[in-house]
Amino acid sequence: MSRADCLARDVTDPLAHARDRFSLPNNTIYLDGNSLGAMPKAAPAVLQAVAAQQWGNDLIRSWNTHNWVSMPQRIGGKIAALLGAQSNEIVATDSTSVNLFKLLAGWLQNVQMSDDPARCFILCERGNFPTDVYIADGITKLFTDRFEIKFVDSAAQLDAQIDATTAIVMLTQVDYRSGQLHNMAALNAKAQAAGTVILWDLAHSAGAVPIHLNADGAKLAVGCGYKYLNGGPGAPAFAYLAQELHGQFPSAIQGWFAHAKPFAFHGQFNPASDAARLLCGTPPVLSMAALECGVDTFAGIDMQQVREKSSALSALFLQYMEPLCAQYQFSLFSPHASELRGSHLSYAHVHGYAIMQALIAQGVIGDFREPNLLRFGFTPLYTRFADVWDAVAILKEIMASRAYEASEFNQRAVVP
Amino acid sequence: MSRADCLARDVTDPLAHARDRFSLPNNTIYLDGNSLGAMPKAAPAVLQAVAAQQWGNDLIRSWNTHNWVSMPQRIGGKIAALLGAQSNEIVATDSTSVNLFKLLAGWLQNVQMSDDPARCFILCERGNFPTDVYIADGITKLFTDRFEIKFVDSAAQLDAQIDATTAIVMLTQVDYRSGQLHNMAALNAKAQAAGTVILWDLAHSAGAVPIHLNADGAKLAVGCGYKYLNGGPGAPAFAYLAQELHGQFPSAIQGWFAHAKPFAFHGQFNPASDAARLLCGTPPVLSMAALECGVDTFAGIDMQQVREKSSALSALFLQYMEPLCAQYQFSLFSPHASELRGSHLSYAHVHGYAIMQALIAQGVIGDFREPNLLRFGFTPLYTRFADVWDAVAILKEIMASRAYEASEFNQRAVVP
Repeated sequence: MSRADCLARDVTDPLAHARDRFSLPNNTIYLDGNSLGAMPKAAPAVLQAVAAQQWGNDLIRSWNTHNWVSMPQRIGGKIAALLGAQSNEIVATDSTSVNLFKLLAGWLQNVQMSDDPARCFILCERGNFPTDVYIADGITKLFTDRFEIKFVDSAAQLDAQIDATTAIVMLTQVDYRSGQLHNMAALNAKAQAAGTVILWDLAHSAGAVPIHLNADGAKLAVGCGYKYLNGGPGAPAFAYLAQELHGQFPSAIQGWFAHAKPFAFHGQFNPASDAARLLCGTPPVLSMAALECGVDTFAGIDMQQVREKSSALSALFLQYMEPLCAQYQFSLFSPHASELRGSHLSYAHVHGYAIMQALIAQGVIGDFREPNLLRFGFTPLYTRFADVWDAVAILKEIMASRAYEASEFNQRAVVP
Repeated sequence: MSRADCLARDVTDPLAHARDRFSLPNNTIYLDGNSLGAMPKAAPAVLQAVAAQQWGNDLIRSWNTHNWVSMPQRIGGKIAALLGAQSNEIVATDSTSVNLFKLLAGWLQNVQMSDDPARCFILCERGNFPTDVYIADGITKLFTDRFEIKFVDSAAQLDAQIDATTAIVMLTQVDYRSGQLHNMAALNAKAQAAGTVILWDLAHSAGAVPIHLNADGAKLAVGCGYKYLNGGPGAPAFAYLAQELHGQFPSAIQGWFAHAKPFAFHGQFNPASDAARLLCGTPPVLSMAALECGVDTFAGIDMQQVREKSSALSALFLQYMEPLCAQYQFSLFSPHASELRGSHLSYAHVHGYAIMQALIAQGVIGDFREPNLLRFGFTPLYTRFADVWDAVAILKEIMASRAYEASEFNQRAVVP
């Protein structure tokens, strides 16, 4: 496929119109929406209204008149619609890390009470995103070693390890480095048969791949607001609690917004009857308003079309990269088959860090992950086929000219 | 003091200039800055820059180029300067509820390990703000009843109850209803002598009364960003961990931002060496940016002058209310003596709810707290002496005309 073919494909792309929902800088090919989603065009005006009008002018009354008070449920309901859940099963709240803690601690409290000491393992992939592992590790200390993390080294080993010793399984649906995609339905069925559940981290899958939480038997999940959901830097995250658990799930961090009647100021904690029991403190309204703009970029979008375009974009990237892999020693770190991947591709290269800096300097923004991975995310709402062509063309030029050897590209800096 | 006297006093008020730092609606007397601080004038433009420029244009690079990554520490450092703490002792993060959980659970983990089973009580006032009590209650369940809440009915009973059975004391420095102010130094000394600590909730005192955390021997504290600190609706909160505890305090919710090197993606959790170990997930950048505007409204402000003006404003309100108390059965619920109070006053009245609605309809915004309290907050950076005169004049009119009996003022709605 030539560049002209890519341009032609962009013209017939059924999602091409969605790009207009975003504000994107000129001369930039943004392949990092898997880390920070692009800004919805609506966001600045919405923030302006929430600040100047609602906060500045209407002040405290806005909790009612502008419905600040129900933002966690309203935005959660929109996310639920996107993920195949009911509106009272998801709330937008806190960070992914805090939500992981709440769901893990809540479930393990129930396991502890059920008096089945054999169920002692938190099953987890060794390569899981660090915060997931750290949170689980912290919880083992809080429960004074009643539970223990059991790592598996690869997804293939998971199936054999889910058994009557499993207290909970904690999985990230799409791996943050390789992009490997788990089969949610099959693993949930396996967990259910073993009398346990999977806590899904949807950070790299919500908004990227079609998700059917209810239909695929998911009971617990968290996800990120600032990646594919385009909710803004550090946007509030979300938490999913399946209806069947609503009556019995402890609010591990019992904040007032988790109360059935937060503003009655009751002395006793009486949790909300649905996923609102996973709320905690007062919602950060400004960040919530931006998150809602992000979630709204999916209005009317068919997630199946998103998946098809994501697969097509990454297939094209893979194809264009083949000669570079041969000539310049890039090595594909992601699964080759599209059905085994989320919406990003990672390549290992000994000069990975410097090459990514050189790409960014040329306007191609991907990111780098330790120890040597270049990561490229494809966000079908705003990535074009021609962007893929251009990105690889620029990379080829950088490799041919060895531009990445410049000292400026070898200064390490931190990026989440 | 006549209205003319009040106007004259506003002219000579050394804090009068600070009102210009805020955007306030016309025809409104805002006496609810203790619930939601007014909007700093700088906030809309800052939000616009963070959204359109930093997020929209600079995208993922802003974590470094605009220092998003250090916002929790930078803003925490500014709050520390205001509260008599060192800059590495406070971080801006999460909600007050989540921070209460982290400090309570972290301290109790250490108590549990110290193998002193007699230390079993979380000492707390019965009338404490609900979320504080709920959080403590949730923690007793997480620690499977190793700890128990012991309530005292009044502040006067506290002293006698702090002893070798106290695992931790949890106090709100200024009571959210009565405004009663604790003596921080004396109580910290009492706790220290008993081998325990006080976890202070500064929600109604930070930015309202002078606080000297280090000098007064405080070890643990949390506080709210959206009240007197003017950080915007649901602004991130803050957490204080005294330097002497830095080496030994568990990060109860071990998120990646609490790691010494969050972006090294280490497999092992290795906490930051200072209060940053209380961080958790990715900071909500937009809400953090507004919080920084709020904290900056205190730049160059002398907290002693804030306290003096707060006392003068509330003394005036008390004086103007005296005839109304006699004639219309308002009853002062707050301590009368200024040195025993924070920066708000509460009055009980059988028609409290309707009277507050009638006041709000006339542009005097205070709030109502169950069961029958009218609450008026005085925020010296933007409340004027003439505002106090006008507010009571309008209340007097409402009482004389019985305007509060209108049915529209008797419809209950929820407000945090």
